[in-house]
Amino acid sequence: MKRLSASFLPPISLDRAKGHPVYRQLYDWFQRAIASGQLRPGQRVPSTRALAAELNLSRIPVLTAFEQLLAEGYLETFHGAGTCVASSIPQETIGPAPGQSLRKIGQASQRKGTRKISRGSRAVKSLAGQAWLKLSGAFRMHLPALDHFPMEIWSRLVARNIRKGGKSLMAYGDAMGYAPFREAIAEYLGAVRAVRCDPSQVMVTTGSQQGLQISASVLLGPGAPVWMEEPGYPGAHQAFATVGVRLIPVPVDGEGLNVAEGIRRCPKARAVYITPSHQYPMGMTMSATRRMQLLNWASRAGAWIIEDDYDSEYRFGIRPIGSLQGLDSDARVIYIGTFSKVMFPALRLGYLVIPEDLVRMFSVIREATDIFSSMLYQAVMTDFIKEGHFARHVRRMRGLYTERCRALEESLRAEMGRLMEVVSADAGMHLVGLLPSHFHDVAVSQKAAQSGISAMPLSNCYLKRPSRPGLVLGYGPTDRAQIQDGVRTLSKMLRSAPESTAPESARHIHNHFSD
Amino acid sequence: MKRLSASFLPPISLDRAKGHPVYRQLYDWFQRAIASGQLRPGQRVPSTRALAAELNLSRIPVLTAFEQLLAEGYLETFHGAGTCVASSIPQETIGPAPGQSLRKIGQASQRKGTRKISRGSRAVKSLAGQAWLKLSGAFRMHLPALDHFPMEIWSRLVARNIRKGGKSLMAYGDAMGYAPFREAIAEYLGAVRAVRCDPSQVMVTTGSQQGLQISASVLLGPGAPVWMEEPGYPGAHQAFATVGVRLIPVPVDGEGLNVAEGIRRCPKARAVYITPSHQYPMGMTMSATRRMQLLNWASRAGAWIIEDDYDSEYRFGIRPIGSLQGLDSDARVIYIGTFSKVMFPALRLGYLVIPEDLVRMFSVIREATDIFSSMLYQAVMTDFIKEGHFARHVRRMRGLYTERCRALEESLRAEMGRLMEVVSADAGMHLVGLLPSHFHDVAVSQKAAQSGISAMPLSNCYLKRPSRPGLVLGYGPTDRAQIQDGVRTLSKMLRSAPESTAPESARHIHNHFSD
Repeated sequence: MKRLSASFLPPISLDRAKGHPVYRQLYDWFQRAIASGQLRPGQRVPSTRALAAELNLSRIPVLTAFEQLLAEGYLETFHGAGTCVASSIPQETIGPAPGQSLRKIGQASQRKGTRKISRGSRAVKSLAGQAWLKLSGAFRMHLPALDHFPMEIWSRLVARNIRKGGKSLMAYGDAMGYAPFREAIAEYLGAVRAVRCDPSQVMVTTGSQQGLQISASVLLGPGAPVWMEEPGYPGAHQAFATVGVRLIPVPVDGEGLNVAEGIRRCPKARAVYITPSHQYPMGMTMSATRRMQLLNWASRAGAWIIEDDYDSEYRFGIRPIGSLQGLDSDARVIYIGTFSKVMFPALRLGYLVIPEDLVRMFSVIREATDIFSSMLYQAVMTDFIKEGHFARHVRRMRGLYTERCRALEESLRAEMGRLMEVVSADAGMHLVGLLPSHFHDVAVSQKAAQSGISAMPLSNCYLKRPSRPGLVLGYGPTDRAQIQDGVRTLSKMLRSAPESTAPESARHIHNHFSD
Repeated sequence: MKRLSASFLPPISLDRAKGHPVYRQLYDWFQRAIASGQLRPGQRVPSTRALAAELNLSRIPVLTAFEQLLAEGYLETFHGAGTCVASSIPQETIGPAPGQSLRKIGQASQRKGTRKISRGSRAVKSLAGQAWLKLSGAFRMHLPALDHFPMEIWSRLVARNIRKGGKSLMAYGDAMGYAPFREAIAEYLGAVRAVRCDPSQVMVTTGSQQGLQISASVLLGPGAPVWMEEPGYPGAHQAFATVGVRLIPVPVDGEGLNVAEGIRRCPKARAVYITPSHQYPMGMTMSATRRMQLLNWASRAGAWIIEDDYDSEYRFGIRPIGSLQGLDSDARVIYIGTFSKVMFPALRLGYLVIPEDLVRMFSVIREATDIFSSMLYQAVMTDFIKEGHFARHVRRMRGLYTERCRALEESLRAEMGRLMEVVSADAGMHLVGLLPSHFHDVAVSQKAAQSGISAMPLSNCYLKRPSRPGLVLGYGPTDRAQIQDGVRTLSKMLRSAPESTAPESARHIHNHFSD
């Protein structure tokens, strides 16, 4: 079979009327496309033979056009590599858009209109973002130890599913996700998180971020007040802000969210966002009393509870705690989880457990949002769980993170002395180091970044004025040597830093649990 | 190395105080978990050895607890398959949530609150959905000919990228997408769609549906009026409805969107959604005059133009047409495309080309939505394009769809006679067959579904009252034999159908282009 031409053929319409030379039309088309940047420097153009065949022409006008374009420096040829757009275009010819000359015909000059964006997006932009996700220095957050991921096994499962998957993994899937995967998730959550649900209540999402955003879209509207833990998770601030929610900061203390204070500040909130297993970022577990208070309030007030159970897999030597969802008898809890940090972030798989009466609505909104999640990784993950690799991987990583957590704590205690108060970490993949109150944690962070340290400032997590400056230090991908080096560098920096003095007048030393 | 236990270990906290027998605590925990449905029938429970080791106990209390659970019928054992939750639980014990007894202590009885969802989601639910995506009969829409996908090549590229990808394909990626993929897309669009952009303006999305939804989120707010082609694309109705937009139907005619009518109905619309290359669903191309009118109006009014260039790869024997974006010199156009129908839907890869001044905002909103797209398929698709497989695949499919389109048209003309007016298809992967005005196309669709035909009713595409009933017939995945059988079945059905009589009084025969 004759090999089909591999190059892309441009959308050229030719006027075949007499008196309108074809070579001229071709020349004009390419010249405008190149001059306006539509065809980019170095980009390959079709061969004269392919172009002539596609346009049903003799090769002669095509060759003529190309010769002129080559002579004038718009095109370049390379032996064995065909013809390309020249890497530097004749400057004086960079011109207007191909359509512009048409537009000037008969048009009065016109005032140009404004370029408005939505109010909601402006609100999102004003929040501290998740820029910290993409950093690559020591102590970066949200990243697991990728070196320790069982890539051999994973690759094998991917290859198997690509081979055997067939059309079921290629066509449109259910907005709720791949059924066997949803069953595996329901079983897993029932077993380890005391979540009570039927697989029909499980929606597979693109990470927990999508779970947050879909929940906001279904349940909340512009101006709806929502309690947010203060300090709390910046990603949640952003997700809720996209639908214009009014974020009400509610302080946390040693027992987690201060429910009484929430009720005082906003008794009729429409929802509350909590991280009860392992508060983000401070790390405490929500006490049984507070859990009951919250469930009772939500039931009376008709409010939704959005439970984000991140990092629940990793608890070091302390008593395990079940989900809040498992205690909820009024179906108020929307339970969110993710595989991003247990597996790897680019997997983009998380889950929602949805009260039965809301499943249909969540499904409709998901369809309107991006229809469904890609099937391949769902199928691979199902095998990974069912064949026991996932449980083994979690156990192995739990051991690794326990070591790294201890190493970081020891190192900080040894090097920092009074400079940093370590908030005792007994779970998860990060800890918080509080700084003396005259420090400016954003400035410290920025300076640390110059030395290859990606410590997130604690103030990023506050909606209002932070109680106390601090750094959030991840230890997921940071090995022992990097931990020690990183802490030493940070310590030297803090001891010598002029920006340790806050621009504003010295603050009182607050208990970091107060508002 | 000792093989790690593969089963999941439950979050049981034990009270080790004297007088509180451990076996009793274990029994209680499992009994409640099983009775409340948290552990599901047939679900495996850990072995007594693993459980004892995890909880740091002697095996004896664990065995005692399990023996009682087995005796009472909560657990079952199978040789070689361990112990599982019984497939049928003792009925009289199905009880309240584990936390409920706690909640009753000291609580006054309370009135339960309401269960409110957002106004926006109610609006989305009221629209005709995209239920048609998941059907599997002849003439189903939006699905390519999956049998003809070059799976061998694709699998090879997936395997290569899994092997060589490493950590860059596992960690957090850019909200805008994988850089080499964005470059390949920019080059492709410049070459074949006359789109002018730098790769920095390209955002990779989860299909075009996400492109629509993100655009709506950035640019539009509740109540913002947006022109929608009438009839138009239901997926767009849904995406815009999620942010509470006011959808203004604007009729289409032989030249595409009737811009003058749009200006008459809503001169200050914030945006317009169009499918200028191949109107969805009617198929006409937007004329040059209308394009200019639209660009001029948008520039004066400060409105955004959301151009959805679906199916532009497939034009059969007619003059190719460039994108509207290529004619736009005021950076008003947000250009949306997808690989779903050229490749396969579960790929979940589409793209947005964003005006430069909006790139940052789109990126922020994307981060708040689901952060970024999974990396593997982006890398594989980049290779697929760069190595020429994509261009070859498109050409091959173009030939296939040309054949299928002709076959369907011939078959319809032969079988239907005056029963169906075929709207001439010269592009894309579907055509419209108009029915006599006394037919009720939703009823026809539902009946056809019973015979394995998935013809979408044209009324699905209308926001207001449809001009004329019809069926939208896809021929992507339907081969010649299925086409002939399907048309014959449909023809028989239409000739004999009692529901051809509309419930309401007979309508006048409208020109399908009028409003």
